[in-house]
Amino acid sequence: MIGEQYLHLPGPTPVPERVVRAMSKPMVNHRGPEFKRVITRATEEIKQIYHTQEHVLIYTASGTGAMEAAVVNFISPGDKVLAVSIGVFGDRFARIAEIFGAQVEKMPFPMGEPADPEAIIARVKEDIDGEIKAILITHNETSTGVYNDIKKIKAGIKDHPALFIVDAVSSLAALDLRMDEWGLDVVVSGAQKAFMIPPGLSFLAFNEKAYKVQQENPSPSFYWDVDKGLKSLEKGQTPYTPAVSLFQGLDEALQMMKEEGLENILQRHKDYRDMVRDAVRAMGLRLLARDDNASPAVTAVIGPDGIEADRIRKFMLENFNIVLAGGQQSLANVIFRIGHLGYVRQLDLLGVLAALEITLDRLGYPLEKGIGLTRAQDYINRVI
Amino acid sequence: MIGEQYLHLPGPTPVPERVVRAMSKPMVNHRGPEFKRVITRATEEIKQIYHTQEHVLIYTASGTGAMEAAVVNFISPGDKVLAVSIGVFGDRFARIAEIFGAQVEKMPFPMGEPADPEAIIARVKEDIDGEIKAILITHNETSTGVYNDIKKIKAGIKDHPALFIVDAVSSLAALDLRMDEWGLDVVVSGAQKAFMIPPGLSFLAFNEKAYKVQQENPSPSFYWDVDKGLKSLEKGQTPYTPAVSLFQGLDEALQMMKEEGLENILQRHKDYRDMVRDAVRAMGLRLLARDDNASPAVTAVIGPDGIEADRIRKFMLENFNIVLAGGQQSLANVIFRIGHLGYVRQLDLLGVLAALEITLDRLGYPLEKGIGLTRAQDYINRVI
Repeated sequence: MIGEQYLHLPGPTPVPERVVRAMSKPMVNHRGPEFKRVITRATEEIKQIYHTQEHVLIYTASGTGAMEAAVVNFISPGDKVLAVSIGVFGDRFARIAEIFGAQVEKMPFPMGEPADPEAIIARVKEDIDGEIKAILITHNETSTGVYNDIKKIKAGIKDHPALFIVDAVSSLAALDLRMDEWGLDVVVSGAQKAFMIPPGLSFLAFNEKAYKVQQENPSPSFYWDVDKGLKSLEKGQTPYTPAVSLFQGLDEALQMMKEEGLENILQRHKDYRDMVRDAVRAMGLRLLARDDNASPAVTAVIGPDGIEADRIRKFMLENFNIVLAGGQQSLANVIFRIGHLGYVRQLDLLGVLAALEITLDRLGYPLEKGIGLTRAQDYINRVI
Repeated sequence: MIGEQYLHLPGPTPVPERVVRAMSKPMVNHRGPEFKRVITRATEEIKQIYHTQEHVLIYTASGTGAMEAAVVNFISPGDKVLAVSIGVFGDRFARIAEIFGAQVEKMPFPMGEPADPEAIIARVKEDIDGEIKAILITHNETSTGVYNDIKKIKAGIKDHPALFIVDAVSSLAALDLRMDEWGLDVVVSGAQKAFMIPPGLSFLAFNEKAYKVQQENPSPSFYWDVDKGLKSLEKGQTPYTPAVSLFQGLDEALQMMKEEGLENILQRHKDYRDMVRDAVRAMGLRLLARDDNASPAVTAVIGPDGIEADRIRKFMLENFNIVLAGGQQSLANVIFRIGHLGYVRQLDLLGVLAALEITLDRLGYPLEKGIGLTRAQDYINRVI
């Protein structure tokens, strides 16, 4: 098939040409002045996106690495941890805490639904002795395309001393997140999502409260040790050899994000979500997430009766070179997921919707051709 | 200054244009068939370079990450570990083992010298009860440009049950290493050295004996867990999102290495070492390493009396755009290090030697101009 793939995963996302060129620059000394400029500038820009004046470290690792870093630095073995889960990544965070010795109390919610803020607030309020040392929560659950209202949850429990630790791997810069204002203590994120660079870098933001907890933590850590990271960052370095080319790409991507403006980026993600949801609904398909907590990063669509979701993905890959994500665990073959975060163009997304209509038709689903597509067109017409 | 830097660090090294182009390919699904082809092929090629039929996993992390992986998978808390150190990276490996709870007995040797095989063999032979569970040793010590004769050491202790764990981060593909034949149990390496790609990927090779030890290890692990890695590799995947663009670069670099041939690559590294050593000696400077254990990856040169090593580096950076490495710890400002591993051209290296002569002259060191350079020329003339 001619031409590049339409990569519509919830990460990795397509990479802008400017970022590719930045990553293609000659290698530099990771202990020299060029790298110092890159890491210093990138760290400052990332803080703007986190809305924080606290610490941000960049790891050479995938997002899961930064999740592990959050656990080994800020949760001590034996600590009671409340782990809220609305899907695969919530389960993963709980599992990491368990593996590293935390006493994990899981608060699961059904896949496809957000966590109920009132239930969490009520549970935390019961803990009058402050036994819960940390609360783990996913901001945007990539596996279902649902986001949690972490602002509301944190506001409801704000006097409780537990560290509030957020997995924002797929949400940062796609969903509004205000670390300092909302009182988030630790926030993990990744660069292959809304930051538009290839995977390999992840971020760990933490405040002084978390840092004090870390100072008392007996868990062994070396690669993830935030003390080593902070000390090196003062010199414009990382403790161990960083993924230099990805840092160069990140620096360029952050410049692009600055040019576009964070508000515009967040609005773009919302617009894409609404356009996809409108169009898919018009096609008569059901969406997994409700409107009020639907992710601006990825939309999970339930396959129509009698047509397996994976058949739709396969047809779209083979005939249009479109890569969509499937469902995981109980949602395997039940949903397909359309990623619309990061470096995605409006008309590419419209192309995906057009291809979906053709696919549904060819797989025997009754559909008035253009019904979703014209909704998407109308949508674009309104927002441009 | 016009033109690209001459990057002569012991990693990261310059990156070939073919690798840059491979890394610039459009992003692909890390759970899809393209990535499966890349990781499967790359893993097989890396095994050839390790001379192993055992397991090889590729981590998205720097070399230190894979060192931590070796420790948390194969050393249990409380295990007695013999840690041989001939410099900064030997110290680092010992430190990681200590942090993760091993009872570390250090066997340090003076910086600039190799470990004495007889001393190590004698120490291990004393351990008749098999209390030592693991031996940590650096293959090529980047901080001093000295390598250890791990083949001889392992051969001398071969009946001892301890796992023999080698840090080959800067040696693999620059120095002969035969994992299976020599009986090495665990070997760590990195891709930003002789593999010619930007930093961000590291390798962990281990045999069945090590894997059995890992199965009994109570240390918590998640990101580094080799079980998860092996399970994902069967599907042509990694447990967590990998640094896709670096994998694409690695795949291309491995093709280049196959075309050049491993024997030729090893010979090239030896030739460069001998050329640099001959020329530097002819200039009247002293070398830190003796001939018999001098690293083919990096050469440490002792600054002449009265001229600080860092002044030489500074002059060469400012006037020739040449990046050399400095000395670390007790060798700071005493030595400078010329990296000659990975993607380095013969005549670029000759240029570095020419610049060194001019630098020495300008800094007041008496020198017959061309004396080292003509030795390098003669050397090239002999080997081409």
